[in-house]
Amino acid sequence: MSLIMTTTTLKQQVFVHHVIEHQLPHNNRLITTQEYGIGQAPVNIALSKYWGKRDATLNLPMNSSVSISLPDLGTKTTICITSTQQDAIWLNNELLSNNHPFCIRLTAFLNFFRPPNSAFQVHTTNTVPTAAGLASSASGYAALVLALNDLFQWQLSTQKLSLLARLGSGSASRSLYSGFAIWHRGQQDNGLDSYAEPIDTQWPELCIGLIKINVQQKPISSTTGMQNTVNTCDLYQAWPQQAEKNMQTILEAIYINDFEKLGETVEHNALSMHATMMATWPPIVYWQPESLAAMQTVWLLRQQGILVYFTMDAGPNLKLLFPETEKPAIMQAFGDIQIIMPFNKN
Amino acid sequence: MSLIMTTTTLKQQVFVHHVIEHQLPHNNRLITTQEYGIGQAPVNIALSKYWGKRDATLNLPMNSSVSISLPDLGTKTTICITSTQQDAIWLNNELLSNNHPFCIRLTAFLNFFRPPNSAFQVHTTNTVPTAAGLASSASGYAALVLALNDLFQWQLSTQKLSLLARLGSGSASRSLYSGFAIWHRGQQDNGLDSYAEPIDTQWPELCIGLIKINVQQKPISSTTGMQNTVNTCDLYQAWPQQAEKNMQTILEAIYINDFEKLGETVEHNALSMHATMMATWPPIVYWQPESLAAMQTVWLLRQQGILVYFTMDAGPNLKLLFPETEKPAIMQAFGDIQIIMPFNKN
Repeated sequence: MSLIMTTTTLKQQVFVHHVIEHQLPHNNRLITTQEYGIGQAPVNIALSKYWGKRDATLNLPMNSSVSISLPDLGTKTTICITSTQQDAIWLNNELLSNNHPFCIRLTAFLNFFRPPNSAFQVHTTNTVPTAAGLASSASGYAALVLALNDLFQWQLSTQKLSLLARLGSGSASRSLYSGFAIWHRGQQDNGLDSYAEPIDTQWPELCIGLIKINVQQKPISSTTGMQNTVNTCDLYQAWPQQAEKNMQTILEAIYINDFEKLGETVEHNALSMHATMMATWPPIVYWQPESLAAMQTVWLLRQQGILVYFTMDAGPNLKLLFPETEKPAIMQAFGDIQIIMPFNKN
Repeated sequence: MSLIMTTTTLKQQVFVHHVIEHQLPHNNRLITTQEYGIGQAPVNIALSKYWGKRDATLNLPMNSSVSISLPDLGTKTTICITSTQQDAIWLNNELLSNNHPFCIRLTAFLNFFRPPNSAFQVHTTNTVPTAAGLASSASGYAALVLALNDLFQWQLSTQKLSLLARLGSGSASRSLYSGFAIWHRGQQDNGLDSYAEPIDTQWPELCIGLIKINVQQKPISSTTGMQNTVNTCDLYQAWPQQAEKNMQTILEAIYINDFEKLGETVEHNALSMHATMMATWPPIVYWQPESLAAMQTVWLLRQQGILVYFTMDAGPNLKLLFPETEKPAIMQAFGDIQIIMPFNKN
């Protein structure tokens, strides 16, 4: 958890004000304690990665990124106003203490939207198995801004909700959508043009395989990790440009359903991001020995002609990409795998 | 093995001519089959790495590098002239067939120096356990040029022998010396200023620990690997400059015997080189799961206050660097480790 997130800055408040300025009914009417807001959002897997911020206060990325959302895996959040002194936050049906890092970060985020003299009650439930290594902060902040939008009846566009979710967690901007989404880097310093949009393309044959790897060491947070990379990794210089290039190739591959082009670029992009982490000092290595063993299995399968590629985020788990036709081979090679078809609910 | 190495090019012949032009008694007198040349050279471990050629024909590197030689580990080579049709090459007391990749490469190298109508008999023995993952081509080509110098009585300076060894294998340029050596990148296109020199500094407390990791997959050769990196790795753009910077820091650390500075820079440099490999397409990953486990042990030891760092070359094995005071802790943490003190023969 970054200190930046624990106190709201003026810059952030101005940003929020600009996003919701014309939709502030909660300043004009009293929200009763009987009213509830509900939000639900999926986790997303970046196909071309976000690593490095051009503005750490507003979570503005060095480069654009593209993701695929996983239906059924995500976060459900319910929020209401109370007259108590402090926010009360339940995570997976457990009331958290107020000094829990999750609470500190969430309360700071809620401060942007807090009516005078009130506190929030938040019930948030992740339908992602925690151990699956899928970032729940992305679906978490997306679900939260949806719940706030519902509670305050802002009727914000999804694009504007994406801006707000980004302020909570960069990759949350992409979790407002099902299917493929693109999060634009944006050019402006005020952060108002760095939001995600859906990509209107289906790919029914696309399978995502989740491979669970046990973590033996407590990893560095991605917020701190990416900041260290930007500050100490010489090789990072070339990353933003590579990431933009990879993203364009991935978009092309998505539009023409070219699986090989998609897979090669996704894997190359992920390995390049992890390369910038390793070339950071002190080194950031999220891989576990089992991660490397799983990669070797993927490469061996490809040598055997099987179309399968992987991606990895700031953790040890591999996410496989393969077309439906390869499902039997993948299931045979990886016993403990959860397979999801984002466009073809089973 | 690269095709480039199997045939000598005019550019290479011109280079060799320039190196040995004033020392060519073998053109003036007949070497009898009774005469022998003997050479012996150590393996060396790069502290700042060589990865990428600015000229693949002459083995000119993108960046300078610094190494430490390991006494007692290396190659012994004996060479003589025969009147037979073909070269006969013994490796570790085994006669190799002429289409063995090692023979093809060596014969091509010997063509630069071959008197008319003659063949060579070469006996070469590595005192490096092959499985220890220490490159024997470096000590091999260094020993070979020493043997040739002895046979032909060229009386070349070590600097000139370093130039010749470089033509056989880039890192061989550094294996002409004991202790620390620096291989200059050089500026000229003709390759005559890209040689290694010794660094006149001792560091008696310095220990090198060799950790043996089993290889499960046949790795890509470093010649092909580095060419692929130069061609396809965007992040590589920043490598040559980082490598030069790291080398300067390592030289400073060597001069003032600053172990922490040495270790941090060596490990950062090695991880950055491996980062450029991983960000190559197809990816080059020399690591094995056991390599990563050993790295994690190193990082854990450092967290416990133990001064130990690692480096890795184009293979899965770790080479540890630590001061003599840490020897007991290292031996306890790594059972199967071979410890060498380059300046303090036990």
